[in-house]
Amino acid sequence: MIIAIKRGVAESELEDFSRFLEGQGVKVHLSRGVSQTVLGLVGDTAAIDGEALSAHHLVEKVIRVQEPYKRANRIFHPDDTRIELKAPDGVLRRVGGGCLGIIAGPCSVETREQIIALARAVKEAGAGFLRGGAFKPRTSPYSFQGLGPAGLDLLLEAKKETGLPVVTELMDIHHLELFEDVDIIQVGARNMQNFSLLKELGRCKKPILLKRGYASTITELLMAAEYVMAGGNSRIILCERGIRSFDPYTRNILDLSAIPALKRQSHLPVIADPSHATGLAWMVPSMAKAAIAAGADGLIIEVHNNPEAALCDGEQSITPDTFASLMGALRGLADIEGKVL
Amino acid sequence: MIIAIKRGVAESELEDFSRFLEGQGVKVHLSRGVSQTVLGLVGDTAAIDGEALSAHHLVEKVIRVQEPYKRANRIFHPDDTRIELKAPDGVLRRVGGGCLGIIAGPCSVETREQIIALARAVKEAGAGFLRGGAFKPRTSPYSFQGLGPAGLDLLLEAKKETGLPVVTELMDIHHLELFEDVDIIQVGARNMQNFSLLKELGRCKKPILLKRGYASTITELLMAAEYVMAGGNSRIILCERGIRSFDPYTRNILDLSAIPALKRQSHLPVIADPSHATGLAWMVPSMAKAAIAAGADGLIIEVHNNPEAALCDGEQSITPDTFASLMGALRGLADIEGKVL
Amino acid sequence: MIIAIKRGVAESELEDFSRFLEGQGVKVHLSRGVSQTVLGLVGDTAAIDGEALSAHHLVEKVIRVQEPYKRANRIFHPDDTRIELKAPDGVLRRVGGGCLGIIAGPCSVETREQIIALARAVKEAGAGFLRGGAFKPRTSPYSFQGLGPAGLDLLLEAKKETGLPVVTELMDIHHLELFEDVDIIQVGARNMQNFSLLKELGRCKKPILLKRGYASTITELLMAAEYVMAGGNSRIILCERGIRSFDPYTRNILDLSAIPALKRQSHLPVIADPSHATGLAWMVPSMAKAAIAAGADGLIIEVHNNPEAALCDGEQSITPDTFASLMGALRGLADIEGKVL
Amino acid sequence: MIIAIKRGVAESELEDFSRFLEGQGVKVHLSRGVSQTVLGLVGDTAAIDGEALSAHHLVEKVIRVQEPYKRANRIFHPDDTRIELKAPDGVLRRVGGGCLGIIAGPCSVETREQIIALARAVKEAGAGFLRGGAFKPRTSPYSFQGLGPAGLDLLLEAKKETGLPVVTELMDIHHLELFEDVDIIQVGARNMQNFSLLKELGRCKKPILLKRGYASTITELLMAAEYVMAGGNSRIILCERGIRSFDPYTRNILDLSAIPALKRQSHLPVIADPSHATGLAWMVPSMAKAAIAAGADGLIIEVHNNPEAALCDGEQSITPDTFASLMGALRGLADIEGKVL
Repeated sequence: MIIAIKRGVAESELEDFSRFLEGQGVKVHLSRGVSQTVLGLVGDTAAIDGEALSAHHLVEKVIRVQEPYKRANRIFHPDDTRIELKAPDGVLRRVGGGCLGIIAGPCSVETREQIIALARAVKEAGAGFLRGGAFKPRTSPYSFQGLGPAGLDLLLEAKKETGLPVVTELMDIHHLELFEDVDIIQVGARNMQNFSLLKELGRCKKPILLKRGYASTITELLMAAEYVMAGGNSRIILCERGIRSFDPYTRNILDLSAIPALKRQSHLPVIADPSHATGLAWMVPSMAKAAIAAGADGLIIEVHNNPEAALCDGEQSITPDTFASLMGALRGLADIEGKVL
Repeated sequence: MIIAIKRGVAESELEDFSRFLEGQGVKVHLSRGVSQTVLGLVGDTAAIDGEALSAHHLVEKVIRVQEPYKRANRIFHPDDTRIELKAPDGVLRRVGGGCLGIIAGPCSVETREQIIALARAVKEAGAGFLRGGAFKPRTSPYSFQGLGPAGLDLLLEAKKETGLPVVTELMDIHHLELFEDVDIIQVGARNMQNFSLLKELGRCKKPILLKRGYASTITELLMAAEYVMAGGNSRIILCERGIRSFDPYTRNILDLSAIPALKRQSHLPVIADPSHATGLAWMVPSMAKAAIAAGADGLIIEVHNNPEAALCDGEQSITPDTFASLMGALRGLADIEGKVL
Repeated sequence: MIIAIKRGVAESELEDFSRFLEGQGVKVHLSRGVSQTVLGLVGDTAAIDGEALSAHHLVEKVIRVQEPYKRANRIFHPDDTRIELKAPDGVLRRVGGGCLGIIAGPCSVETREQIIALARAVKEAGAGFLRGGAFKPRTSPYSFQGLGPAGLDLLLEAKKETGLPVVTELMDIHHLELFEDVDIIQVGARNMQNFSLLKELGRCKKPILLKRGYASTITELLMAAEYVMAGGNSRIILCERGIRSFDPYTRNILDLSAIPALKRQSHLPVIADPSHATGLAWMVPSMAKAAIAAGADGLIIEVHNNPEAALCDGEQSITPDTFASLMGALRGLADIEGKVL
Repeated sequence: MIIAIKRGVAESELEDFSRFLEGQGVKVHLSRGVSQTVLGLVGDTAAIDGEALSAHHLVEKVIRVQEPYKRANRIFHPDDTRIELKAPDGVLRRVGGGCLGIIAGPCSVETREQIIALARAVKEAGAGFLRGGAFKPRTSPYSFQGLGPAGLDLLLEAKKETGLPVVTELMDIHHLELFEDVDIIQVGARNMQNFSLLKELGRCKKPILLKRGYASTITELLMAAEYVMAGGNSRIILCERGIRSFDPYTRNILDLSAIPALKRQSHLPVIADPSHATGLAWMVPSMAKAAIAAGADGLIIEVHNNPEAALCDGEQSITPDTFASLMGALRGLADIEGKVL
C-alpha cells in the first residue's frame, strides 16, 4: 500500500502518522521528494482500511498495490482449483484444472415431463450438469416466480432419472434445508453482494456457483468469493454472465476479458453464461464458443424444447438440437485449448 | 403493449395468435401494413410477460407502452405520497408532498459518545432524522462490519436522548425483530433486488428507505418498490445514491435526472444521498444543493465529528460545522422551491 | 509519479532503471520494502509517458499522482478564468469568475423570422448569448444537416438585430473563415477528441465552448482543453452535456458532479447543457437549476417557439415562456450562490 | 415506425396528424384501442425524423421497427461483402465472405529498421496486412504524436520490401493526398462520428477500416458506415475495439457480442482489435482467439519487437514470437469455423 502525502506536511506530523500506521501491524518506508512525499506500507495491508485512511488530513491519495483478496488469490494458491463431484450415475464430473464443465437445462422447471426430457437431451448431447430454476428472481412481482419447492422436487427427480448432478439458485437462506440433495448452489447476479447469504454459504459444504453482478468489477467478484471462502467453503465456481452497457442491442455485454482476468488473479474455475448475457438465442452458440476460446472452464446454457412456450426467458433458450450441434463445435475447441470435455 | 409481427405470416396464424393473447385477458387490435403488421394489446397488460412473448416465432419485437408498475405509478395515484412520523420529541417529521426531510448522522455507530454528540449536533442544525449504521455491507469480509446489535442499542439511546427518529440499514431478515424501535428501515443499494428481503418488508408496517442499486434503471427501482407495495406496505422513500460510470473521479455518478424522472413516474417521495454517490466530502454540499434544486424531497448525509478517525467511509463525511452551514443554504433553496424545511 | 517494481528485481537492474529515468529529467527516490519496492519520481513528470513505462519488464504498476494537464490546471493558475466579450449592444458579456453566462436559442437556425424572434425573446428573458446551429452533426446522413453558410448568415443577422453575441458549432476546419463574425466557437461532444480540429483552434483568437464527449472522463476533457491551450488559446469554456449510461430513460445522464470536479481541478469556467443531456423538455428547468446550485458558471439551453415543428431536437426544446420563467428561478439561485446573473 | 398517441386526443386531431404524416410519403394505419391509440407508418420511414415527431403534442412515444441504415443493411444486401486487394507481392488479400484477414504491426512507425523487421516477421507468421501509425491520436498534446509524413514514407518502404498491403490511420483530411499509396485507410475510434471526415472518405476509392467509438452503439457504428457509403464508397471493414465500462481492470471491454450482432445486421466484414481493447499484451492471444470463435472476419493486432522501448502503447504489444504462435492457434480455429486463413 502506498500513501501519497499532501504538500507542506511537517516532519513531526509525518513521524506521528508513521507511528500510528505501524501500530496497525505494518512497516512504513518514507520517501521524501522535492514535490511529493510517499509512504510505502509493507506487511499485512489487507487488514488496513484504505478508505478510512483517505480521509486523514495528511493524506492526498491511497494506492493499493496488492489485491485485497487472499484465499481467492492465485499468488497464495498457484495451482488451479478443480471442482469434482461424484455424480449419481457414477461418473466423476469436473470443472476447472483443464476440465470443461457444461451445465445445461431450462431457465425454470415447469413440469415433470419437461425437466426429464430436457435432462435426457442435454445429457445425451454431452452436458455434465443439469440446471433448472425452482426459485426465480424476477424484476416484476407479477411475473412467474418459479414453482418453488415443487420445482425443486421435479429437478431432483430428473437427477435420479438421468444421474446428472443438478445446479439451482438459492435466493433465501431459509430455503437452505430444501437444498440438501442439490449438488451445486447458484448465487444469482443480483445477490452477489448479499453478504448475509454469502456468509451462510461459507458454512455450507456444497460447491457454489457465484455469478458476477451486472455492474460488479473483477475485484468485487473475487471479494464476494472471499466472503464464502473466509467462512470455510473454498469450492467456488465463478461465472461471468454479462455486464450493463449503454447499448440496448443485447440484454447485457458478455465481458469475455473477465475470463483471462479472473484466471490470472485467482485459482478458482471460471465459466460463462452466454444465455443471460445476450438474451438472444441465436447469439448463444457464437458466444459459447468465444468463451471457451477465451479460456473458460465451462458454460451454463439455457436449453428448452419449446422456447416460445417457456414460462420465462424463452427468448434466450436454444433448442436441444442446437445444443447438440454446439457441443460438436465445443469438442473441437477443447482440443485446441488442450482441455477435457 | 405493441407487438410487431415478422414478415410473411399467414392470416390464419395471426388469428390463432390473437386468440391466444385474448385468452390472457386483453383485447387485440390488428394493424396490417404493406411491410409491417402490428398488434396493439389493450387492457391489463402488466400481467403479460413480454419477454416470454418475444420468443414466439411470429414475433419480431415487443414494445411496452405502459409501465409495468401499478401501485408505485403516479397515473393510478396522482397525489404525492408523504411519509409522516410522530417523533419521540412530539414533532411531526415529514418527507415528501412539499416537505423536505433531512437525514443525517455517521456512516457507522461507533461509541455512545459519538452517536449522541452527533445526534445533538445534526438536530440543532435542523436535521429531522438521525442515521447510523449498525450492520454494514462491506465489499471485503476483512473490513469493519459494524457493531451489530450493540450499535443498534446505541442508536436507540441517541433517539431517546434527542427525540430524533432513526434510520438504519437491515441486511438480514433474521434481524428484523431487533428493529422494533427503529423508525425507518433502510434497504441498501446492493440489496435493491434481494427479492426475499423486499417481500418480507412488504409485510412490515414501517416506512422503508429504498436505495437505488448502482446499476439499476429507474424502472427497476420502481419495480423493487412495487415488490414491497405488492405485499401491503406503501410507505416507501426512494433514494438516488449514484450509479456506476467509466470515470473514476467520483466513486459513483449522482444521477440527479433520476429525481424529476422518479417524481414524474411515481407518487413516492424521492431523496438523494450525495455522500455515498460522490465519496468526496468536499463535494457533498454542492451536490446536496443541486439535489434539492432538482426537486428532491430530502437528503441523507453522512456527518462525523472526526472524519479521519471514522471506522468507515470517513473520506465522504462532512463535519457538523459544514453540515450546519449547508442547512443554511438549503433553507434558501427550500424557499425557491416552495417547500417546507 | 510512483512506480511499483515487480518482486525479485536485482539491485543492479534497479540502478540501471533509475539512471534511465533520471536521464528523462526527473529525480528518482527508491523505497525498498520487504514485499514491495517503489520508485518515486519527482520533477516534470508530465513529459514522461506512463503507458510506455508500464510495459517495462521491471514495472508492476505506474501511478500518476499529479495531473497530466498544466495550462488548464488550477494548481498553476489559482484564480478563476473569466471569459469576457464586448457585445455589439455595448454590454460586457461574461462567463466565469462569479458571473453566470446564459446561452439560449434554437438547436438549428431555420428561417430569418425564427432566429430573430427567438433571439429577441431570449434576450428579453435575460439570456446573454444566442445559440443556433448552422452545421449540425447528425447520427444519420439522411437527417437534416443544418442550413450551412446560409444558416450562419441568418444567425449573424440576428446578432445584428439584437446585439447578442452568438455561439455556433464548427465541425470542419475548412469552415473557419466563415466564422469570422461568430463570437464563441463550439466544439461538439463527438469532436472533443478530434485533435486536428483542437490544434487549429489553438491558433484561433476566439473563445471556444468545448463540450465533454459522452464517454469522456474529467481528465480527458481537461486534456482536450490542454490541446487548445498548448496552441496559445486559453479562452475556453468547458461544458458538461451528459454521459452515456445503461438507463434509456433520459438520452444521457447529466453528470453534475463534473461541475465541482472541473472547477476544483481547473480555473476554466464550466457550464451545463441540460437540453442535450436529458433530451426531455419537461426536465430542462429542474436540471438547469440543479446545475447552477452545483456551482456551474452558466447554461446552454435550447429554446424554440414551436418545438413540434423544429427541424431537429424539438423534443428537448423549451418554449420562450418556459425559458422566461426559468430565468426567474435562476435569479434566486444566483443570489444564494453569490453570483451575478 | 409505430407512434403511440397520448390519451384523450380527438378524432379530428388524429386525422389532421395522419394527413400530415402521409404528406411525408408514408402510409398511416390507425389502431384505436380502449386505453391506447397507435399509428403504424409504412413505407420509406428512414426519411422520417423520429426525434422531431416525438416533440409533437399528440405523441406519447415513437418506436422505430426498421433500422435507419439502408446501404449497410443486410436486408437489402443479403450476401457478405468481401474486401479484396491485389497486394504488391501478387497475392490476393481478402477480408470477409469466409476469409480471415490478419492485420499486424507496431502501434507507431519508429525507424526504418523497426518497421521493416516487423513487416517481415508478421508476414512470415502469416499476417496478410501490415499496420503502423504515422499520425497518432494521443490524449495528451505532450505525448509522442507519431513521425507524421516521414513515418508514412517508412511504412510504404516496408510495403515495398515485403509486398504486404498497409493500413494506417488518417486523422486530418488535409493529409489525404499523402495517403495515395496506402491500401486501407483507418478511421480511429475518436473520429467515428467526425462526419466531415466520413463524408470525404465517401468520395475516396480506398477501403476504409472504421473503428467503433468507445461508447458508440451497434446502430451508431452502422450509421457511421452509412455516411461513407452514402458518398459512394462501400468498401468498409468494421472494427470492434472495446467499449468503456466501470471496471478499470482492462482499458476497455472488448464487446465480442458486437461481432455476431454486426454480422447479422450488416453484410460488411467485421474484425476485432484485442490490443487496444484490453491494453494488456498477455490477454491479447485469448481475446484474439475468442474473436475468431465469435465469428470475426479478421483481427488487427499490435506487434513490437521490443515492447518496453515502444514509443506508444508498448504495454499492449505482443512480440513476433507470441504472434507466430497465436497464428498457429488461429489456423485451428479457422478450420472449425470453416474459414480461409
